[in-house]
Amino acid sequence: MTRQELIGHIRTKKSYLCVGLDTDVNKLPGHLLHEENPVLSFNQAIIEATQDYCVAYKVNTAFYEAQGIEGWQNLIKTFAMIPNTHFIIADAKRGDIGNTSHQYAIAFFEKMQVDALTVSPYMGHDSLSAFLAFENKWTIVLGLTSNKGADDFEMLKTDGGLLFEDVIRKVSTWGTEDNLMFVTGATQANYLKNIRQLIPNHFLLIPGVGSQGGSLEDISRVCLNDDVGILVNASRSVLYASGDRDFASAAASEAKKIRDQMILFL
Amino acid sequence: MTRQELIGHIRTKKSYLCVGLDTDVNKLPGHLLHEENPVLSFNQAIIEATQDYCVAYKVNTAFYEAQGIEGWQNLIKTFAMIPNTHFIIADAKRGDIGNTSHQYAIAFFEKMQVDALTVSPYMGHDSLSAFLAFENKWTIVLGLTSNKGADDFEMLKTDGGLLFEDVIRKVSTWGTEDNLMFVTGATQANYLKNIRQLIPNHFLLIPGVGSQGGSLEDISRVCLNDDVGILVNASRSVLYASGDRDFASAAASEAKKIRDQMILFL
Repeated sequence: MTRQELIGHIRTKKSYLCVGLDTDVNKLPGHLLHEENPVLSFNQAIIEATQDYCVAYKVNTAFYEAQGIEGWQNLIKTFAMIPNTHFIIADAKRGDIGNTSHQYAIAFFEKMQVDALTVSPYMGHDSLSAFLAFENKWTIVLGLTSNKGADDFEMLKTDGGLLFEDVIRKVSTWGTEDNLMFVTGATQANYLKNIRQLIPNHFLLIPGVGSQGGSLEDISRVCLNDDVGILVNASRSVLYASGDRDFASAAASEAKKIRDQMILFL
Repeated sequence: MTRQELIGHIRTKKSYLCVGLDTDVNKLPGHLLHEENPVLSFNQAIIEATQDYCVAYKVNTAFYEAQGIEGWQNLIKTFAMIPNTHFIIADAKRGDIGNTSHQYAIAFFEKMQVDALTVSPYMGHDSLSAFLAFENKWTIVLGLTSNKGADDFEMLKTDGGLLFEDVIRKVSTWGTEDNLMFVTGATQANYLKNIRQLIPNHFLLIPGVGSQGGSLEDISRVCLNDDVGILVNASRSVLYASGDRDFASAAASEAKKIRDQMILFL
């Protein structure tokens, strides 16, 4: 999906919500456990319930890998069931030396046909350029993450400011606004203003609202640009809005609630 | 496998060689393509040919993920075919917020029963502690990698020296010499001495000899400690020593050649 197509979907739906399919088999509503494939039944119902309120789905590969071969099959099938009107993100945080990153790019961009992949910047240029080389695909690089551990290294002082600022400044020269985004945590509202000054036009993928405590209002006020320029992810707060038979309608209500807030900022 | 068991295998075999199973389907000897499962036939032959000369196998997940569901099946089967006399490393470079890293730990430590997993440090403490919490398992954290991109961020100046030094110094306090190793590239010989001073006792996993150009002699002279303390990885130079019907015996010769050099340093 191109930048213009993504912006188009956001404008039409008045939503920049990304729903995170971090489907944990231990948190599924009990009645689904009798289904042939509980994870896929859950994901299908969540997608159907939320697709009108979101423009993207982010699938966290860890929760699928933890289920062995069946999990990897479910990962592939989950990507396939997301409608092509929605931006598809594999949240896999891959990254290795160039020839290995190229293999990960094949796995996600070619085999699974996702639009975007999250990648760790630690290993530098060749580890990222292998992803950026794929046409019509997006590389989403970790900038400042939403977790407590972000303080350990991302916040280290360097000659250029803080490490995450160096990462964003340098990596932004390796790709374009059409193939590169950054992950910037919603829990880091104090820093989002500086990040927006560093990269006024790039899209930001912002996790951390909902269960992790970030404020949608704060991040929207600071990060929205003329092209909207942000995708805000909610995972657990939507997926597990109810743990009972009404999980899908509860997820729809939660997604709609977030979208209704977003309308106010657009 | 415990540290003492690993050291025991190294002493018995007089080898600290790790063979990297970065099996690329496009580089397999032509005659194997007629087999039912060329990748597994290749890996089985490589393991049989090299197991007397190495103490560890490192399986690079990217090359398997790039082959879709069959690749993931081959990854699982490859781990299962490595003899339990050998230290098994999943070279997957994972890492995410704590609850997600926990899922990756389940995938590799519990489901696939590997001894060790490579992990990126960018996201800090909670992203690593989820792996370190698993008993009798090893977390191998990226310190200074062997690729050119290592210059971009790992070498950034910080208050504490260079970023990779900060990473090694801080992460080394989060685990022990019994559950934590670091990746330090063989192409970075100038820095290995400093790294050894920072962590005199931790095992180092050292890729980059062979195709990437690092010198076994240089790194052995600088990095060996009283417990040996290093695993040196060779992948392409062993796997593709011959591209023909003699690939397994050629791989054995190459592995033996490296082991014969190692004997001189032990």
